[in-house]
Amino acid sequence: MKKHNIILQPSGSRGQVDEGLSIRSAARELGVEIESICAENATCGKCMILIEEGRFEKYNIDSKRENVSPVSAEEAAYFARRPKLLKDKGWEVGQVRLSCQCKIRGDILINVPEESRGNKQIVRKSASNRAIEIKPSVRKYLVSMVPPNLERPIADWERLAKGIETSMQLVRGVDAKVPRWYELDIDYQCLRGLSKTLRDSKWNVTISVWQDKEVIEVQAGYVEDSYGAAVDIGSTTVALYLCNLRTGEVLASESEMNPQIVYGEDVMSRIQYTIEHPDGLEKLHKAIISTLNKLLKQAVKTANMSLRAQVAKQSPDEAEIASGDPEVIGASEQVRPRNDIKVEEILEMVLVGNSTMHHVLLNLHPKDLGLAPFVPTIHKSVDVKARELGIQINSSGNIHILPTIASFVGADTSAMILAEEPHKQDENWLLIDVGTNAELILGNRKRLVCTSTPTGPALEGAHVEYGMRAAPGAIERVHIDEKTLEPKYKIVGEDDWNTGKAKGICGSAIIDAVAELFRAGIVDSRGKFKKELSTKRVRQGEKGWEYVIAWAEETSIGRDIPMTQQDVRQIQLAKAALFTASRTLLKRSGLQDPDKVILAGGFGSYIDKEKAMLIGLIPDCDLKNVYAVGNAAGDGARIALLNIEKRNEIDAVTRNVERFELPTDPEFQNQFMLATSFPHMSEPFPHIAHLIPNRVVDPMAKKFMK
Amino acid sequence: MKKHNIILQPSGSRGQVDEGLSIRSAARELGVEIESICAENATCGKCMILIEEGRFEKYNIDSKRENVSPVSAEEAAYFARRPKLLKDKGWEVGQVRLSCQCKIRGDILINVPEESRGNKQIVRKSASNRAIEIKPSVRKYLVSMVPPNLERPIADWERLAKGIETSMQLVRGVDAKVPRWYELDIDYQCLRGLSKTLRDSKWNVTISVWQDKEVIEVQAGYVEDSYGAAVDIGSTTVALYLCNLRTGEVLASESEMNPQIVYGEDVMSRIQYTIEHPDGLEKLHKAIISTLNKLLKQAVKTANMSLRAQVAKQSPDEAEIASGDPEVIGASEQVRPRNDIKVEEILEMVLVGNSTMHHVLLNLHPKDLGLAPFVPTIHKSVDVKARELGIQINSSGNIHILPTIASFVGADTSAMILAEEPHKQDENWLLIDVGTNAELILGNRKRLVCTSTPTGPALEGAHVEYGMRAAPGAIERVHIDEKTLEPKYKIVGEDDWNTGKAKGICGSAIIDAVAELFRAGIVDSRGKFKKELSTKRVRQGEKGWEYVIAWAEETSIGRDIPMTQQDVRQIQLAKAALFTASRTLLKRSGLQDPDKVILAGGFGSYIDKEKAMLIGLIPDCDLKNVYAVGNAAGDGARIALLNIEKRNEIDAVTRNVERFELPTDPEFQNQFMLATSFPHMSEPFPHIAHLIPNRVVDPMAKKFMK
Repeated sequence: MKKHNIILQPSGSRGQVDEGLSIRSAARELGVEIESICAENATCGKCMILIEEGRFEKYNIDSKRENVSPVSAEEAAYFARRPKLLKDKGWEVGQVRLSCQCKIRGDILINVPEESRGNKQIVRKSASNRAIEIKPSVRKYLVSMVPPNLERPIADWERLAKGIETSMQLVRGVDAKVPRWYELDIDYQCLRGLSKTLRDSKWNVTISVWQDKEVIEVQAGYVEDSYGAAVDIGSTTVALYLCNLRTGEVLASESEMNPQIVYGEDVMSRIQYTIEHPDGLEKLHKAIISTLNKLLKQAVKTANMSLRAQVAKQSPDEAEIASGDPEVIGASEQVRPRNDIKVEEILEMVLVGNSTMHHVLLNLHPKDLGLAPFVPTIHKSVDVKARELGIQINSSGNIHILPTIASFVGADTSAMILAEEPHKQDENWLLIDVGTNAELILGNRKRLVCTSTPTGPALEGAHVEYGMRAAPGAIERVHIDEKTLEPKYKIVGEDDWNTGKAKGICGSAIIDAVAELFRAGIVDSRGKFKKELSTKRVRQGEKGWEYVIAWAEETSIGRDIPMTQQDVRQIQLAKAALFTASRTLLKRSGLQDPDKVILAGGFGSYIDKEKAMLIGLIPDCDLKNVYAVGNAAGDGARIALLNIEKRNEIDAVTRNVERFELPTDPEFQNQFMLATSFPHMSEPFPHIAHLIPNRVVDPMAKKFMK
Repeated sequence: MKKHNIILQPSGSRGQVDEGLSIRSAARELGVEIESICAENATCGKCMILIEEGRFEKYNIDSKRENVSPVSAEEAAYFARRPKLLKDKGWEVGQVRLSCQCKIRGDILINVPEESRGNKQIVRKSASNRAIEIKPSVRKYLVSMVPPNLERPIADWERLAKGIETSMQLVRGVDAKVPRWYELDIDYQCLRGLSKTLRDSKWNVTISVWQDKEVIEVQAGYVEDSYGAAVDIGSTTVALYLCNLRTGEVLASESEMNPQIVYGEDVMSRIQYTIEHPDGLEKLHKAIISTLNKLLKQAVKTANMSLRAQVAKQSPDEAEIASGDPEVIGASEQVRPRNDIKVEEILEMVLVGNSTMHHVLLNLHPKDLGLAPFVPTIHKSVDVKARELGIQINSSGNIHILPTIASFVGADTSAMILAEEPHKQDENWLLIDVGTNAELILGNRKRLVCTSTPTGPALEGAHVEYGMRAAPGAIERVHIDEKTLEPKYKIVGEDDWNTGKAKGICGSAIIDAVAELFRAGIVDSRGKFKKELSTKRVRQGEKGWEYVIAWAEETSIGRDIPMTQQDVRQIQLAKAALFTASRTLLKRSGLQDPDKVILAGGFGSYIDKEKAMLIGLIPDCDLKNVYAVGNAAGDGARIALLNIEKRNEIDAVTRNVERFELPTDPEFQNQFMLATSFPHMSEPFPHIAHLIPNRVVDPMAKKFMK
């Protein structure tokens, strides 16, 4: 067999391949995946490549269009329907080719454009920015069959399954491990519609295969995209991301209040509700299911509106293709109107949430989550058909819920691990998701330990005298001059300091205020207000000593806004709980300090890292190694939706996470007492030591201080 | 490690094993499986063995009770609760032991009684009597767990799954390939009840595992048996067999009319009904599901009544154990009252039926079964959760329906193959299931071919002038003296010939009558009545020539009962269709005659083989190689229910069966014409040649005749 030299750009892959091979097959031999959906049918156009002409001295080849087979009728027809694409890109037919159609006849240099490259990735912003490879659990294949006749009256499913095996092999390469047709399965509900769809489509269908083994959707004609939803069920808010499973693109983000809030503000009160009311679980379960169904509909609507806006910007011919006008496109090449996604086209939903949200979603009674010894019903991830839960995506579609780790370390923490990947690090990372309850994960590739602790609502601004959510009017930043003891503050929605009318203090400013009171020497390291200070801002108020941040005339509520002794005590208890949890994990792991601290969730994104460390909320470490990563749980859900391998990974990782229940630690009370001080009664905190006023240095701690 | 000589009877297995090994483990090492369910917990008693004492010269060992560990407290307790068993068998404790508890300390000769032997079998009566090994898809394991505590708050499912892995290994031996706990799954509906059952049972449960991978039932305490149902859905009758999945025993057999009969007598008219009525399929589907649910309830009731009758015969102490009285049995050893089986304890149902029954059961539209090119929706076997079909066995239980082979060769034929096993033969077997439609399978281990042919209702006695079912009053046998031309007949329910009052003629007598008319020379080989005969029984009747079998005074209807020319013609058409189908298969397989002919179904059981051959209903072969095997489809369903490996076997076998549609055979019309003669116009039929009157022998055929 004659061989030719092939160079692939931009990867630079090169090698000798057989004459007559398609460029797509040749590229695969050289380790470069080129996209395809249509089983090399010249239909999907995903495998477009460019023939680069010229004499390439570096490779010692003479690359010419004549060195590949001429443009076929099918290719010509494909490009004829896309004049705008050619014009926009400045390509001409012959230069651009469908690599599944174009056969090698001589030396050639090929450019694989971004959109044709296989193994698509999305980039996730995290402590270590990483690329996530798109490997969804559902893949689509175009299957064309010879209709049955009296000589070959083989059944519909077997006819389709043999076609799928062929298509899978064409799309993935003949050497790829694809299941034999008789190993494939079809979901029962999907089977029910099979015969009609095959005949209506004249034996040309696009099928969606789940996990390479089960057909869950059969659509007439050629259909390009499948959709999935990633959902983070918070106790307060439910957030849903509608994604394109092929590209990884987020098409819509929607959120709603968690409707269970009427049955209890926090998880403990909701568990209590299910214990006290025989129909309590059923009510909570139905409430979340109906919210999910509402969010699905909203997300599809939002996505279609935004896709419609994109189509409107296209030239008329592109828009007509997008609208699926049969006059423009061949009957064998139905392009689904991309602005008309249906909820039934959503083939998978991945969910995360704390263990209580997890149990209620699955209609599992959560009572043992709230009673010692605090045991979930199940840790491992659960796969269940959407129809079993009444979730109105495609009825053959799958619901995947990530594993729980412990009673108070749920699927949201699993998702955070998946997003941040402490299990792939050499360094020891401490991940903290702060809420009313904080979950902590510490470790590296060798070992991960976890715990959780109630922190109370103070860190989120509740149970603090003038605490409020980070809404307009909320003070979000506080600075106190250590000489004048006068404050500066910034209000949400205002660009400058000390402008606008204050209404209250939100979580980040509470941390700021406590840290600044300490730094300026207004409260001592035990959190007690000093009384002999030369400022009228420190005063005896109705509920004891307090520091006035904003005078009544600076507010929209006509009252002074102070931080009270009571408020400081609340923060001390919350930060002591969190610090003790961190310290316990570090100690159990034989570590002094973490290499990195990662703060997940909304709270972590807004607080001032330095001030959080100054009050001893987090263990000492170099401030440049403290990261706020936002909604890591939501990101983790999206990663699991887009990459099936990540699901197995997180199941395996969570199986080996060691769980510690804090009250079982004998030193807990002792440690907790020491941790109520700012930043801590017996720990040195060298990285913020310069901010600590009048520090009495423990001789034992000296060696750690720089 | 010290070794001892062990002899196992009755198998005679022997060898050296390590000191301290349990007898059960030692037996496994020597290749002898001993039963167990309770994970070596001294609970189930399935592993009882007898220590044989004495000097066995043949083996050169001195076998003594002292050569095994003393009777443990648990063993003593087990036997103390079963005085009747010991008395009935004449065993004493110490002689009889639980082999899971009893450790080897010296040479020993052991007797494994029948009931303790593993790999239980049932014997199936078939063309080749065979033993069917019991390997159900569902197996039970007793699992005892340490309750969770604050130090080990692992989730309920993971706690159970680890216990299952341990139990499976104890029951099957540590070297057996059992799934790791994290590879096990639990059905979602079963998971929902898990936490409550674990706690109610104080962490002692019996679980049922489907296909070694999915837990589908968790029951409190120790439960011994699971149940399954095998169902044959005929167009006319639905038959259900309730089986014990551990022993293979049939506990009840129930049957009902197929309720679909009101929508059409035969499959074609029911298909027509679903085409003409938009809700037709739904009606037919619901009708069969409700009949299945009714049969399940009836079968459980019948089984409980019969088990109650058995318990009543037991001694009081046995009866008390059976009734589950907690005073008698330990709390850790709940023996389920065996006369109180519940429908929810049925964990699996295997169904067979023709392709139309198959489709309607699965709510798949059957219209393409009845329209050219006659294509089923699916061939392969289908597994679907009972709850998806509304079948009221355990909701996590599974429905398995055997594969279809063609539009008119359904899951009942697959079951027939499974029961008769032509695919394991060196000889070529011809299997025929005769009904309104006949299905035929021909071949051996190398190749199987199949076809089907409509035979019309004549062979079942319908559309024949005085035809009737095989009910009291029906003539079931006919003999005609070839000299006097006088008949003898036998009536259903009468012991002697020519006694009783005749009401009509049933299927078997119709074959008899036609064969005898031919043998006696009353009709010629073309099926035409001879007119010049010296008997008044042959006469011109209202509808042409006829032969009177019973005069009016011999009947209960007061009319002569004749076989008419019309009746003979009906039989000629039916037998020609069947013979042509057989001949086509033989020809396509390059065979002259089959080595064996197997007639399945009720029809085959009643006809006279010799007479069937004389009229040319079946191809010529040695009469001792013609077998009637009764309800092979029902037997096949039961085999598939009791042995999971048989399901894979029949799926693989049916994938390779070659299908022939008769009308596509160019010689069909020609062959059919030749086959209307008795026994055939151009075939020699050497095995019944001596019965053929005035035979004109074709010179070509001579060589075949003896």
